[in-house]
Amino acid sequence: MSHIGIDMGGTKIAGALFDDNNNIIVSTKEFINGKEGESVAKMVIDQCIWLMESNGININSSIKIGVSVPGIAYSSTGVVWAPNIKGWDSFPLKEHLIRAFPSAMIAIESDRTCYIMGEIMNGAAKGCTNAIFMAVGTGIGAGIVVDGKILHGHSDIVGAIGWMALRSPQKSGHSNIGCFEGYASGEGILSQAKNQITSRHPAKGILSQTDPNRLTTAMVFDAYFKGDPIAKFVIGRAIEMWGMASANLVSLFNPSVLIFGGGVFGPAAELIEDIYKEACNWAQPMSIKQVKFIQTSLPHEAGLYGAGAISITNCNN
Amino acid sequence: MSHIGIDMGGTKIAGALFDDNNNIIVSTKEFINGKEGESVAKMVIDQCIWLMESNGININSSIKIGVSVPGIAYSSTGVVWAPNIKGWDSFPLKEHLIRAFPSAMIAIESDRTCYIMGEIMNGAAKGCTNAIFMAVGTGIGAGIVVDGKILHGHSDIVGAIGWMALRSPQKSGHSNIGCFEGYASGEGILSQAKNQITSRHPAKGILSQTDPNRLTTAMVFDAYFKGDPIAKFVIGRAIEMWGMASANLVSLFNPSVLIFGGGVFGPAAELIEDIYKEACNWAQPMSIKQVKFIQTSLPHEAGLYGAGAISITNCNN
Repeated sequence: MSHIGIDMGGTKIAGALFDDNNNIIVSTKEFINGKEGESVAKMVIDQCIWLMESNGININSSIKIGVSVPGIAYSSTGVVWAPNIKGWDSFPLKEHLIRAFPSAMIAIESDRTCYIMGEIMNGAAKGCTNAIFMAVGTGIGAGIVVDGKILHGHSDIVGAIGWMALRSPQKSGHSNIGCFEGYASGEGILSQAKNQITSRHPAKGILSQTDPNRLTTAMVFDAYFKGDPIAKFVIGRAIEMWGMASANLVSLFNPSVLIFGGGVFGPAAELIEDIYKEACNWAQPMSIKQVKFIQTSLPHEAGLYGAGAISITNCNN
Repeated sequence: MSHIGIDMGGTKIAGALFDDNNNIIVSTKEFINGKEGESVAKMVIDQCIWLMESNGININSSIKIGVSVPGIAYSSTGVVWAPNIKGWDSFPLKEHLIRAFPSAMIAIESDRTCYIMGEIMNGAAKGCTNAIFMAVGTGIGAGIVVDGKILHGHSDIVGAIGWMALRSPQKSGHSNIGCFEGYASGEGILSQAKNQITSRHPAKGILSQTDPNRLTTAMVFDAYFKGDPIAKFVIGRAIEMWGMASANLVSLFNPSVLIFGGGVFGPAAELIEDIYKEACNWAQPMSIKQVKFIQTSLPHEAGLYGAGAISITNCNN
């Protein structure tokens, strides 16, 4: 029987109807455009209705619906915390969906959990039972599956790897974001490069001539691949941090595959070999030999496939 | 129905018959005394037979037997790797036990997994579904339970936290042991203190007058609590490392309780409050507020209670 996956972002909502193998039959996408609270839930519901009706599925059927949310999905209550959607700092999403589809089975997970489930069901980790997705964008988080189970933890915030402590002393600038994030997220790399531009005197290279206020993370990567000294310093340190953090994930979780995704991988995908080499300096020696480091195979769709995947795995529990 | 737990160490084997609540009915202990390979397995079998026969249990009954091994227990094969027991670098323990007790149900786990299961069933983490035991002795490892499940990983070596990368650059001296272990295990503390004694000139305090070849980890702790400057430097850095590592466990696994045990906690139990303070500088802010840091409540018996516990949890799966 077909099932539905909904991938919520901060600005748009993508939805798809999937077949039994979690392949997309039909998909749709809409922008949130400043909508808030219940209006956003109504968009999700309308998308589900459209996916069902346009494919001849009765909306009162016992269909499975999986939703990926950009934040925390509280597994015992179905309440979600999604700071980028207005009015969703404690929003009873499951309750709304159950009211709209009383016969459906509903699964809700965080986006990072959906990323790894998408990769396990349809992507680079297909069939794996021990796999991690490291999502590096503005921030850093991980979706983690161990022994075939999605990890949730005491309050559903497993995998907050952006907070990994990797370098002492703790800088005061990291009090609002994690240490790892401060060096190796998109924002972290940008902020480190800006610091270097304003503090290095005399400075050489492309970035030293760039207005820090117009700098982007993409420009730092461009400069890195052209050999710019500031970019080499900043990205070089990020490689060390990605390597140490990856090593820690390998030593602690013993996965068979570690997938790198998010906007930064992207350009950083070319660095995965260097990251693996760095990780070899640190990780448990048996575990690091058994793990593969790879780029996401679903760069824009891991969340959507994952939303489909959790509707199968979670609703069968 | 009663069940059996066997706690294997490098030098001795402890066994107990437990009641339904995993309380000890009767226990026994024997030294390995240089025995090897199958002879050690025979000791385990004889201990089980003694525990059954002396309590009127037929040795052909369908009793549950749990075994804690000091090393790795491969969950799919029942083979164990226990480097401190001669001839047990790839020993088919489960096969031997099944042959001796064909009607019994056998569960085998690593000692660090048994520690946390003992605490969950009978100790400081009673009833918790998200709990970690950080075992700090000669080395460092962790037993980890998430969402009520023991974690195993791809090759059953989850929780190798002694290898955690916490301080760059990687020292060449850490190539055989992990970074965290190099600073904060019993051996690590001893080795750091010896380095300080031989390299500090001029040096003051108790330790500076001590022959490094006669130094023990216990002496370093004694000196620390008396205000010795070398001990304050070494233990101070260990507190930072325990804090960073604890923070990482909290951010990554989101437990409700983190238990400190092993020979070093022991004397380091007095430092748990300082370790929590350090961890607060690093960890995911919501997770760190929700977790308790506590000393083991079963300092010498977590492994034995855990062996009893896994015989219940694993054999029911």
